[in-house]
Amino acid sequence: MTQTVVESKTKTAIIGFDQPFCVIGERINPTGRRKLAAELEAGDFSTVEKDAVAQAAAGATILDINAGVVYNSNPNPNETEPPLMRKVVELVQGLVDMPLCIDSSVSGALQAGLEAAEGRPLLNSVTGEEEKLEMVLPLVKKYNVPVVAISNDDTGISEDPDVRFEVAKKIVQRAADFGIPANDIVVDPLVMPVGAMATAGLQVFALVRRLREELGVNTTCGASNISFGLPNRHGINNAFLPMAMAAGMTSAIMNPVALPIGPKKLDEKRAELAAAGIIVPDDIDPEVLANITGMGSTQPRAGKEMEAIRAANFLTNNDPHGANWIQFNKPPVKAGEAEAGARGRRAGGRRRRA
Amino acid sequence: MTQTVVESKTKTAIIGFDQPFCVIGERINPTGRRKLAAELEAGDFSTVEKDAVAQAAAGATILDINAGVVYNSNPNPNETEPPLMRKVVELVQGLVDMPLCIDSSVSGALQAGLEAAEGRPLLNSVTGEEEKLEMVLPLVKKYNVPVVAISNDDTGISEDPDVRFEVAKKIVQRAADFGIPANDIVVDPLVMPVGAMATAGLQVFALVRRLREELGVNTTCGASNISFGLPNRHGINNAFLPMAMAAGMTSAIMNPVALPIGPKKLDEKRAELAAAGIIVPDDIDPEVLANITGMGSTQPRAGKEMEAIRAANFLTNNDPHGANWIQFNKPPVKAGEAEAGARGRRAGGRRRRA
Repeated sequence: MTQTVVESKTKTAIIGFDQPFCVIGERINPTGRRKLAAELEAGDFSTVEKDAVAQAAAGATILDINAGVVYNSNPNPNETEPPLMRKVVELVQGLVDMPLCIDSSVSGALQAGLEAAEGRPLLNSVTGEEEKLEMVLPLVKKYNVPVVAISNDDTGISEDPDVRFEVAKKIVQRAADFGIPANDIVVDPLVMPVGAMATAGLQVFALVRRLREELGVNTTCGASNISFGLPNRHGINNAFLPMAMAAGMTSAIMNPVALPIGPKKLDEKRAELAAAGIIVPDDIDPEVLANITGMGSTQPRAGKEMEAIRAANFLTNNDPHGANWIQFNKPPVKAGEAEAGARGRRAGGRRRRA
Repeated sequence: MTQTVVESKTKTAIIGFDQPFCVIGERINPTGRRKLAAELEAGDFSTVEKDAVAQAAAGATILDINAGVVYNSNPNPNETEPPLMRKVVELVQGLVDMPLCIDSSVSGALQAGLEAAEGRPLLNSVTGEEEKLEMVLPLVKKYNVPVVAISNDDTGISEDPDVRFEVAKKIVQRAADFGIPANDIVVDPLVMPVGAMATAGLQVFALVRRLREELGVNTTCGASNISFGLPNRHGINNAFLPMAMAAGMTSAIMNPVALPIGPKKLDEKRAELAAAGIIVPDDIDPEVLANITGMGSTQPRAGKEMEAIRAANFLTNNDPHGANWIQFNKPPVKAGEAEAGARGRRAGGRRRRA
């Protein structure tokens, strides 16, 4: 059974055919998060700290660390990203003892992350591009770490799954030339948005099966890509993840945390309740209001995708006796939480139809 | 591509590898529904009418009709079930023009259902038991209808999936002896509860793939069996169905309707709201209260399993351009419904995290 071992100082995460699905938390990444990027340039790491703790609490197995901020004060990431990567890695591993995934397109940042990370981090990523292969594989060999291999090359991303399979095969072979075993390669077959490519889902399922059966490698993907541009994205993601797991996918880079209910949503709900003649005390605990109206929580909590993954772990016989499933489905009760809130969440939340 | 054609008077449902998943509504069945059984013996068909309409509205493609009531006045189903089957079939097909699935273990009831049904109903079911084969296959041939084949035989239900495959193969071969083609056999490989058998999910996925690739037959199952005895059964079902579809399953016998929120649940919610200091008008529309607190609806509506199936249809390229998905995810607005209710349901319902 193929196993990819990823370690923090004291914790081990195994990505494998006979393991629970490995959730690589994607939140610590300033790409497309301008507020976070500005915070990081300003030396404010409070959001990173919150994201690390929330993803760990939601059930992530590995935390991806991307420090790709383009500083306003200095447009050269080769100068700015390595020290920032080192800083974020040290901060996160000081906060949560979890295996990390060092994520950068900048060689110096990958190196800095590898130096700073304790244990055996996952490197993210290499592709079939010559320049990338020559830049990343020596680092993978030198630091003896596993690596995410994305199946695009110098010709770009092919819409033909057979071409993407061949790219993955080439990377595995090139890695072997460096003495890197196949079980240290985690292939991302690339997930296209199903709204743009009707065969996107079928392509991934077929590719994952081939990668597992023919190359014996673990697989991962940016799971939310599948639902890009569609309504009710979570509805698509919640089906896609179990289907990919049924095909043999062993990990995903994703957000395990459900969006906390913010003041704006709570105000909208207050207005709806008022319009229905329901009177809410001005001083009500926002968490109680969010729980009792079935909105969710003002605190980060595991998203529905984590429920789908836990169910699929059970259905792929990677949750012995369903112990994890049963534990996960006990009604959560937070310390000091109002009883009404606890009841409200049970009535309005995940267990409503159970 | 294997296609099983099931017809009502004017509508056609095709079970097939290149078709949207076929949902066979299971609700019209007195087994384990003592209240319904008593109603049917008393000649009250109001629940049957409600179940037929609700399942059609929730997106069922075929309606299963089972009239297996053991009358208190007459313990002989051979006398009581055939006329009741005829009556229910005529009632349902007069109410909704949908293909039917004639479901009985009583020969006379199958015959009565076949005589009463317009179009080309699905027969449910034959097994590998000699007596069943001799009783059902001649009816299948005589009426030229497709049949559900359950993979158990005179030795019972094997826990060995290879044995269940062989039973299915035997039924397909025996049917061929009667001149019944494989595309008119819909095999139920039998779903065990994953809580009792850890490999239950993996068995079904592997069996469905083999049945499709080696026998070229369509498949179905009693989907909810998988979660029997477990907490948050819908969470398991919502993952199981897409996984089975990814493996190639083409239909399921299931309940497409979410449990409507009843007075008891509404009273509990009122108590929770009161405990949190929230004042609800005594005369509030129950539907508005159910919607605005994220409980769901006092009316039957499509269950979460239907969302999972629609997403999986899209991901298996059986929902061209996602037209069905996009339509399904438009916020429902019922005629005459209070705006607050409509807003409440959107905020509290399926689209909350979209």
